Amino acid sequence: MTWERSGQRAAHQLRPVRLTRGYTLHAEGSVLVEFGQTRVLCTASVEEKVPPHRRGSGGGWVTAEYGMLPRATHRRSDREAARGKQSGRTQEIQRLIGRSLRAVFDLQALGERTIHLDCDVLQADGGTRTAAITGAWVAAHDAVTHLQTTGKLTVSPLTGAVAAVSVGMVQGTPLLDLDYAEDVQCDTDMNVVMTGAGHYVEVQGTAEGAAFSRRELDALLALAEGGIAELIALQRLALSTT
Amino acid sequence: MTWERSGQRAAHQLRPVRLTRGYTLHAEGSVLVEFGQTRVLCTASVEEKVPPHRRGSGGGWVTAEYGMLPRATHRRSDREAARGKQSGRTQEIQRLIGRSLRAVFDLQALGERTIHLDCDVLQADGGTRTAAITGAWVAAHDAVTHLQTTGKLTVSPLTGAVAAVSVGMVQGTPLLDLDYAEDVQCDTDMNVVMTGAGHYVEVQGTAEGAAFSRRELDALLALAEGGIAELIALQRLALSTT
Amino acid sequence: MTWERSGQRAAHQLRPVRLTRGYTLHAEGSVLVEFGQTRVLCTASVEEKVPPHRRGSGGGWVTAEYGMLPRATHRRSDREAARGKQSGRTQEIQRLIGRSLRAVFDLQALGERTIHLDCDVLQADGGTRTAAITGAWVAAHDAVTHLQTTGKLTVSPLTGAVAAVSVGMVQGTPLLDLDYAEDVQCDTDMNVVMTGAGHYVEVQGTAEGAAFSRRELDALLALAEGGIAELIALQRLALSTT
Amino acid sequence: MTWERSGQRAAHQLRPVRLTRGYTLHAEGSVLVEFGQTRVLCTASVEEKVPPHRRGSGGGWVTAEYGMLPRATHRRSDREAARGKQSGRTQEIQRLIGRSLRAVFDLQALGERTIHLDCDVLQADGGTRTAAITGAWVAAHDAVTHLQTTGKLTVSPLTGAVAAVSVGMVQGTPLLDLDYAEDVQCDTDMNVVMTGAGHYVEVQGTAEGAAFSRRELDALLALAEGGIAELIALQRLALSTT
Amino acid sequence: MTWERSGQRAAHQLRPVRLTRGYTLHAEGSVLVEFGQTRVLCTASVEEKVPPHRRGSGGGWVTAEYGMLPRATHRRSDREAARGKQSGRTQEIQRLIGRSLRAVFDLQALGERTIHLDCDVLQADGGTRTAAITGAWVAAHDAVTHLQTTGKLTVSPLTGAVAAVSVGMVQGTPLLDLDYAEDVQCDTDMNVVMTGAGHYVEVQGTAEGAAFSRRELDALLALAEGGIAELIALQRLALSTT
Amino acid sequence: MTWERSGQRAAHQLRPVRLTRGYTLHAEGSVLVEFGQTRVLCTASVEEKVPPHRRGSGGGWVTAEYGMLPRATHRRSDREAARGKQSGRTQEIQRLIGRSLRAVFDLQALGERTIHLDCDVLQADGGTRTAAITGAWVAAHDAVTHLQTTGKLTVSPLTGAVAAVSVGMVQGTPLLDLDYAEDVQCDTDMNVVMTGAGHYVEVQGTAEGAAFSRRELDALLALAEGGIAELIALQRLALSTT
Repeated sequence: MTWERSGQRAAHQLRPVRLTRGYTLHAEGSVLVEFGQTRVLCTASVEEKVPPHRRGSGGGWVTAEYGMLPRATHRRSDREAARGKQSGRTQEIQRLIGRSLRAVFDLQALGERTIHLDCDVLQADGGTRTAAITGAWVAAHDAVTHLQTTGKLTVSPLTGAVAAVSVGMVQGTPLLDLDYAEDVQCDTDMNVVMTGAGHYVEVQGTAEGAAFSRRELDALLALAEGGIAELIALQRLALSTT
Repeated sequence: MTWERSGQRAAHQLRPVRLTRGYTLHAEGSVLVEFGQTRVLCTASVEEKVPPHRRGSGGGWVTAEYGMLPRATHRRSDREAARGKQSGRTQEIQRLIGRSLRAVFDLQALGERTIHLDCDVLQADGGTRTAAITGAWVAAHDAVTHLQTTGKLTVSPLTGAVAAVSVGMVQGTPLLDLDYAEDVQCDTDMNVVMTGAGHYVEVQGTAEGAAFSRRELDALLALAEGGIAELIALQRLALSTT
Repeated sequence: MTWERSGQRAAHQLRPVRLTRGYTLHAEGSVLVEFGQTRVLCTASVEEKVPPHRRGSGGGWVTAEYGMLPRATHRRSDREAARGKQSGRTQEIQRLIGRSLRAVFDLQALGERTIHLDCDVLQADGGTRTAAITGAWVAAHDAVTHLQTTGKLTVSPLTGAVAAVSVGMVQGTPLLDLDYAEDVQCDTDMNVVMTGAGHYVEVQGTAEGAAFSRRELDALLALAEGGIAELIALQRLALSTT
Repeated sequence: MTWERSGQRAAHQLRPVRLTRGYTLHAEGSVLVEFGQTRVLCTASVEEKVPPHRRGSGGGWVTAEYGMLPRATHRRSDREAARGKQSGRTQEIQRLIGRSLRAVFDLQALGERTIHLDCDVLQADGGTRTAAITGAWVAAHDAVTHLQTTGKLTVSPLTGAVAAVSVGMVQGTPLLDLDYAEDVQCDTDMNVVMTGAGHYVEVQGTAEGAAFSRRELDALLALAEGGIAELIALQRLALSTT
Repeated sequence: MTWERSGQRAAHQLRPVRLTRGYTLHAEGSVLVEFGQTRVLCTASVEEKVPPHRRGSGGGWVTAEYGMLPRATHRRSDREAARGKQSGRTQEIQRLIGRSLRAVFDLQALGERTIHLDCDVLQADGGTRTAAITGAWVAAHDAVTHLQTTGKLTVSPLTGAVAAVSVGMVQGTPLLDLDYAEDVQCDTDMNVVMTGAGHYVEVQGTAEGAAFSRRELDALLALAEGGIAELIALQRLALSTT
Repeated sequence: MTWERSGQRAAHQLRPVRLTRGYTLHAEGSVLVEFGQTRVLCTASVEEKVPPHRRGSGGGWVTAEYGMLPRATHRRSDREAARGKQSGRTQEIQRLIGRSLRAVFDLQALGERTIHLDCDVLQADGGTRTAAITGAWVAAHDAVTHLQTTGKLTVSPLTGAVAAVSVGMVQGTPLLDLDYAEDVQCDTDMNVVMTGAGHYVEVQGTAEGAAFSRRELDALLALAEGGIAELIALQRLALSTT
């Protein structure tokens, strides 16, 4: 017996994805990304200076922070600001988002400035980190456009698109874009980050239950490749409208 | 010459106020409150236990936490979770929200459980703390209704409504519900919290520039009283729809 | 039946107030302030530099810190230095003291230097924050005199005096300058900070029990006004002696 | 022109690996693992209780902590205990080690006790996390044996072996078991964790420079599979001697 | 040429020592101890429970905390509560005070309760830790008396008196009870803690400049012995009055 | 009946001491010091800058940090980096090591650079701080030699040797170089640090049980003097080989 997906979704089908640009007012880029019930607000903020390790390099920096509102989840979780530190999970995710976005930036072409990507989960239903990467790229693109229209940059430092999706083995079936109920059930959970050119930026597969075989790995990678191609098309569509 | 308000607003006029219930999925109460461009997500979460100082009392507790997304503001501010502590301002505000809500709760009637009010500013344009109190009360009301419909409470522990508004002297004129541009300009800034019965829960007036006279204080209190009566009507309206 | 005050004090009567200048040796200003059994040591320290947000402004800064010795209170409380953070209450109080003192300073006239006001409670019996403001002003005055006698300043940057007192409704009676036993009993607790010119710097009223009416607010403000006038006379008296 | 490996090592060749059991006195398992110049001390400590989320489950827990001595590296790095927090990198690594080891433990069979794996890098030359996983498994095995010989367990809760290795693309060549000089140069860096049965526990590939193709991913996975098979043979060899 | 002491004090002479009991209101013991210009407030607080490592032992605990008001010193020092941690120096001193007091307590006879000794320096002029130990013993004695008069203890758990003094080599001369100016000049600084019976509890000698010889060590120990005998007589005198 | 030492060691006999230079690869000095089963890795790292309080002085700085691997001890202790702070004990020890090493350095001759001494306990069996001082001096010597051979210094800033040993009264007998079992039993525990010239740098004696007499103190100091002379000979021997 195989797993029945919510809303009669097929195994290789993404949840409904929405990318709402200009979601808030102040940021140079501000995108609400929705993968089904998962909702993440991604803002891109331009700061005209760089962290110490980049000073004097002539080049810029792209960095990310991730947070979850206390009641984004089924049960309320502690506020990290009140506890006084970010969890290991939070740090792992924000490091992943930062690396993923830097993979499509020519930091030298960005000039000595920083783009901060803040990804805050308003509502969680699985896949928050992959939604965050997908939305953050659109926000970063808007921030780059802002730098161009205000005359601070002439050439875009973006070398391509980047998007991400989760895949997993649930009760023996490889599934694309797991929601929370599926994430809890899955034996193998993999997050894949790819560029618009179809190359890998990150592959992170974890056996939650039983270890997984090469055949399963291949099936999951194939699913992810298809899903990311769709996400990149949706990113381009979102950017095509003003 | 007097101050010209944005959007030709009169001195005694609130910004457009919206209260959107059910804004997110998981919380027992979830309200997006908007005072003009200020947007605060207020969730009410029920937890079936109480903090140590209330254990064994038979009564409950109501507490609040406040946060601001890093790019809710004109310029990006540091993420408190990353810095490892909440600012004095954040603590002051969340203590105010908690006290204000407790003022309209019969904690004994709530039973030995806690209502957590999380107020997270998605977009800031002045008056975030007063919007938070106003929205949190609606979220708390929804959480209480949830406790009643699930049979955990028969009688509501709410003893009335509570709402809040800011008032201030800007270039000699008393104004209701300051936006950010007005807040920066004002000499005296006052936050007033009142019940539906028209009594004060909190009065916090601060001279930002020159000290203020009793006459000015009276003018500001009168403005606030009118504004809060309107807000309480809007809260009741929001609750009247399903 | 009305509340009987300790020591047959009248409702509008301050506790015995003492301001002892030169209480410790090293500080530019050092004042022990006593409101009855409440004893706060207020020192003013001059530092010839300013915090980052004031650098290059040509003007100075006035800031305050507040602390309570662990056994200043009836029951020993934790040492904040050992716990590793200041409580929300402590931060709220020290922010209030700082704002109150800045309200009577011409920061530009102070020059690019900082006055640190340290208010440490040796013994607590209610009203520590209002005693601290009242004593800190005398300490600040002594520090300013020190700057003048050492030739660092010719004109005083002080624009007037500032003092503070608490008032509250206890069992239906408005009382001036609450001691700890009264503070525990009161329904409404208000801290009022006023200048020597009789204007308000801060008004902070909180309903501890029932919300309070406008009539009660007016009664409390009137009491406070009288008390602060007395305190300002006592400050001037203390400064008149060498 | 291709990369010349230090010591004329072939692309698919591990560095000399040594596993020294009983390296320190007190721990139930204590293994010094060396991958060339990389040296990690892995201890396994048995504690007869479990963390809160496992209490009353009847089952146990396996967890890991990772540290690096300040001068394990080419340049001295700050001591995390002195800075007051673990870096994101440290947390990411210790979470990986913990997950990897739990993948080969039947936690129920372990009983309500915890095995703590402490992996401390005495000398770093690339691959510290993969060496740590490989050594920690041997230490955990010794701790399990200790539980068996002291009569606390009759059946081993270990369901198999686990080992890990890094692979990477350096100047276009896929290389096994990168040393520090290679790690700095590589475009793609992948850490692979596999069981003795040849299944994957973790696959973590990161594009450090250019994104990588599916063909490159396959080449790296093949290299890793061979390396891990060798490491597992070396683990068994180390355990075969007393 | 030898060092000239302030106030024509002889090398073997203590500064004027004052022990003021009942200095504050709430604590079970509250003593202001003065060694010349050094002033330390020592309070002893009784708590009817013990720390975890003593629970169920039937015996009690004695512990100390030490703090310095920011402007107790010539130049203002940072407030430890604001910095978020106690310095190494503070911890070293409070551990020393705790050990010294425990040396004269029969913890079993104290019963399962804790005596907290809080030593807060109001004004510093050298020798704050030795003054603190000397004063804390008198405060502890008063707390014990309080336990006896309230019927909680019948027999005193104190096994004797304890006092402390500093000694040092300044420009070749051994001096007793160094003030700040002497402390800065001294080559060797030694803190000695002794019981009323003339035995050592702690001997801590440190070469600040040149290492010191056995002959110098002997001279310093002899000076300290005399000084402590005097201090113990002063403690007894202070306790003899009500 | 007197205490029987492990391995038939005489009361005045050191445990077998080994000093292994070049224990790790990267540090300018790297020494494993063993006092019997106690094993401490001491590295000396040269940094070409100084802390703020030494900047512009022309002179250098020598500082130490101390740590213990979680399972260096009989029972696993918490990792300080994970707990987020160093214990009071750790800070006390690292301050002692720093002072002891600075006592034999001419900081002016070192030039404006810092030598960091990191002392990490791999295995603990009593006397870790004295072993650390003894080993750190050899590591510091190697770092100085490195500065000389690389032409950064012509004259050594070392003014002599320094070593340390513990002594204690166990069941009435004065013993040299206590192991853990003896340390737990002893009434008086003393750590003595001396130079190669036979002078004291630190004397720290603590009564763990009963206070100790002058006669006991003298016996312990004599034992320590002999032990340190041996240790200094062993240091010189270790340095005589390349």
